[in-house]
Amino acid sequence: MSVALKSRLASLALAVALVDPTSVLAAETKIPAASITVAEQLRDRALKDNTGYEIVSSLTTEVGPREAGGPNDLKAVEWAKAKFKALGYDKVWTEPVTFPKWVRHSESARVLGANAQPLYVTALGGSAAGDVTGEVVRFESLEALQNAPADSLVGKIAFIDFEMKPYRDGRDYGKGSRIRNGGPAAAMSKGAIGFVMRSAGTDSHRFPHTGMTRYPAEGTPIPAAAMSTVDAEQLTRLLKLGPQQVHLKLDCGWDGEFTSYNVVGEITGRTKPKEYVVIGGHLDSWDLGTGAVDDGAGVAITMAAGALIGQLPKAPARTIRVIAFANEEQGLVGGKVYAANHVGGLKKHQIAAESDFGAGRIYAFVTSAPPYAKNAEKQILSVLAPLGIDGGDGTGGPGPDLIPFAEKGLAWASLRQDGTDYFHLHHTPDDTLDKIEPAALAQNVAAYAAFAYLAADAEGDFGSAPKPDAASGKK
Amino acid sequence: MSVALKSRLASLALAVALVDPTSVLAAETKIPAASITVAEQLRDRALKDNTGYEIVSSLTTEVGPREAGGPNDLKAVEWAKAKFKALGYDKVWTEPVTFPKWVRHSESARVLGANAQPLYVTALGGSAAGDVTGEVVRFESLEALQNAPADSLVGKIAFIDFEMKPYRDGRDYGKGSRIRNGGPAAAMSKGAIGFVMRSAGTDSHRFPHTGMTRYPAEGTPIPAAAMSTVDAEQLTRLLKLGPQQVHLKLDCGWDGEFTSYNVVGEITGRTKPKEYVVIGGHLDSWDLGTGAVDDGAGVAITMAAGALIGQLPKAPARTIRVIAFANEEQGLVGGKVYAANHVGGLKKHQIAAESDFGAGRIYAFVTSAPPYAKNAEKQILSVLAPLGIDGGDGTGGPGPDLIPFAEKGLAWASLRQDGTDYFHLHHTPDDTLDKIEPAALAQNVAAYAAFAYLAADAEGDFGSAPKPDAASGKK
Repeated sequence: MSVALKSRLASLALAVALVDPTSVLAAETKIPAASITVAEQLRDRALKDNTGYEIVSSLTTEVGPREAGGPNDLKAVEWAKAKFKALGYDKVWTEPVTFPKWVRHSESARVLGANAQPLYVTALGGSAAGDVTGEVVRFESLEALQNAPADSLVGKIAFIDFEMKPYRDGRDYGKGSRIRNGGPAAAMSKGAIGFVMRSAGTDSHRFPHTGMTRYPAEGTPIPAAAMSTVDAEQLTRLLKLGPQQVHLKLDCGWDGEFTSYNVVGEITGRTKPKEYVVIGGHLDSWDLGTGAVDDGAGVAITMAAGALIGQLPKAPARTIRVIAFANEEQGLVGGKVYAANHVGGLKKHQIAAESDFGAGRIYAFVTSAPPYAKNAEKQILSVLAPLGIDGGDGTGGPGPDLIPFAEKGLAWASLRQDGTDYFHLHHTPDDTLDKIEPAALAQNVAAYAAFAYLAADAEGDFGSAPKPDAASGKK
Repeated sequence: MSVALKSRLASLALAVALVDPTSVLAAETKIPAASITVAEQLRDRALKDNTGYEIVSSLTTEVGPREAGGPNDLKAVEWAKAKFKALGYDKVWTEPVTFPKWVRHSESARVLGANAQPLYVTALGGSAAGDVTGEVVRFESLEALQNAPADSLVGKIAFIDFEMKPYRDGRDYGKGSRIRNGGPAAAMSKGAIGFVMRSAGTDSHRFPHTGMTRYPAEGTPIPAAAMSTVDAEQLTRLLKLGPQQVHLKLDCGWDGEFTSYNVVGEITGRTKPKEYVVIGGHLDSWDLGTGAVDDGAGVAITMAAGALIGQLPKAPARTIRVIAFANEEQGLVGGKVYAANHVGGLKKHQIAAESDFGAGRIYAFVTSAPPYAKNAEKQILSVLAPLGIDGGDGTGGPGPDLIPFAEKGLAWASLRQDGTDYFHLHHTPDDTLDKIEPAALAQNVAAYAAFAYLAADAEGDFGSAPKPDAASGKK
């Protein structure tokens, strides 16, 4: 998941709560008993199947890192097309996604003076280049920086030292990513020449966590970097000894436009081929790791789920559409393009779910289903229950790339993954294949396969319907 | 611990076994009951004391990385002198240690071609610079490389992919460090233009492990690097797809001479001030981390142990000498200089122990004591037993910097630490303060303090005596 989705998720939840009163008059959505039986068999087969792990191994080994617009971006697109075909998908195509390209060249930081030593840093995505030296001023939160007196940081480097804690639902990432997004702007507003932060991560390793940042329209962007949690603790100890000068040097920046592609594969539906259950992940990753958990896992889980459905003797009623989205990391670009391209066919999208929270086991299943489809949701949950999945706390979301479409009225499902370890390695060099547990990945595939099959075979819908802009929460 | 000590340790063990037959005639070494009581109180006080952790925090924060000859080497010397004084040591001095200086500038490696991607590598200490591109040829062991046909690697890069497993006694490091030391020479003998190895480490993180290598006297040294265990697995997967070209670029090399210092602090003995119990660690570290476990911990444990002894109302009979050795990592240089400087006073060195195996708890206590001192060894063990320490398997060694002196006949003690996690971070950027558990460090301080006090108060000796060169195992 990328840039500050919190407010958008909140408005989405609100939109879901404002159920269209006409919807309660719709016929109740039901899943035939025979479909339940097939889905149970599919689930059990998926648990013993290693297609998902083979896919993520193939992607992360053969293509490796896949930063949007980077040297492997189009290789990943070719890989996805070939993989969909090799997995027996009926249709495979691409849809272009154009965006500004950001490039990382080099990055370094050092404490100067009596305690001189290197700090392990990485430029935040979208950071401006810069070569600055200044005294570090530490803040414990974004608010503390925002409340600093105007001009109090002239010639200085702002440092936000917020410690994320690990939770199953990864809730602290909201705070961490808000600092990553808003920190540079707040620092600029106080006259700072640079911005550094404790990584939005929960590990104790010497890897900084990258991720996108943003600048205000006004003013000259300052270089913005994350340091490893270990280095942030070291800098904090050093600041207790006295003022510290830091030299921060980032060579990075925007470099023209790039066109990548959403890659789409379909298992054609048996009786309603023009109606879709959409699942997917994002094909891009950050450049530091090989993007195994973010989001090779999501691509692999959903590609494998579709492939297993495709191997059934009889396809489900509706089409299973699997999307490998382009450039999620730098602003849900692929997701926005997909929504724009397909908004006219919104009602044909039965329900959608993106897997983009690592490779941990799924523990909860939630949908945006209106009352008339709640029983179908329960039917799906009954098939997922043997996988250790329940209704959780009833909250969730569609996954980042589906937010733009969900804001237009797309019905969504949320298969919530255990993210306790996710932010140990999210957006670091350590996001690699060895961090994925094959059995946990297979549990994900089983859940996605069963969900997608059942949704595709349901009689009735899950509530996708165009929303007036007012209700979509957009400003 | 550094460069291939296995053969030297083996010959040392042999030397110990060949006990001088006259020694059995010596009077039995005994520790007075009153000394036992004091040592028990000292042990219990040390367990509740945080001096050790404060020392390692101070060293790793204020000085940071301390590669021999690097920018912080002499800062570390100044730090050690000041710290000994602040801790109340009676005498503090330095002894110069001169060595060739090796410098790391930059390092990178990439897979080229269809699966192009970066590999996370670090130059091995002592590596030659180089900028080479060639096909990688994988071997599972040093022997396999040594057995390759002559000239079979002309124009190629040799890759040894040996996986170290974690053990409490760290036994696989013998194999891993042998590859690190001998791999480049073996690769050169087959015509290779470069050498890469799976790091001598037991973790699954993306940190390569540095450490010293050596070249034969003949031939042109080739660039030699370690890659992270994760990258080694990636390269192995890639090699299953077909031949792989790798570009390896190391900018590093020898750059003149440097003079550092062994730093010595003493707590003067009450009745035999010219006889010494020696404990210590090494002050240098590798450059990638801050040298917290290797060997800030050893310096801190022994400095704290001496300081706690110094705070007793009555000093032990003999002097406690604590040594912070210079440049262990690049070849036990400080240890060799100390042995050369003090060999004439060998018999005045009652017994010696270096702490250099991380910050894990001590589980075994072993000495080289001859039969007449075995009861005293048992007396010491009885004081250590409540710390969870027993006699282990009866094997051990003096610690690397004391090997050169032990080969001359110095009696030694081995306080064996649990090294299960040690090679997760040994010689990597991840060797930082947060990896040290304060309670485990205090257990080490308690053991060293009790051991040193008891040895210093023993009536009789532990067998230090000059050995004929033939018995020392030297060639």
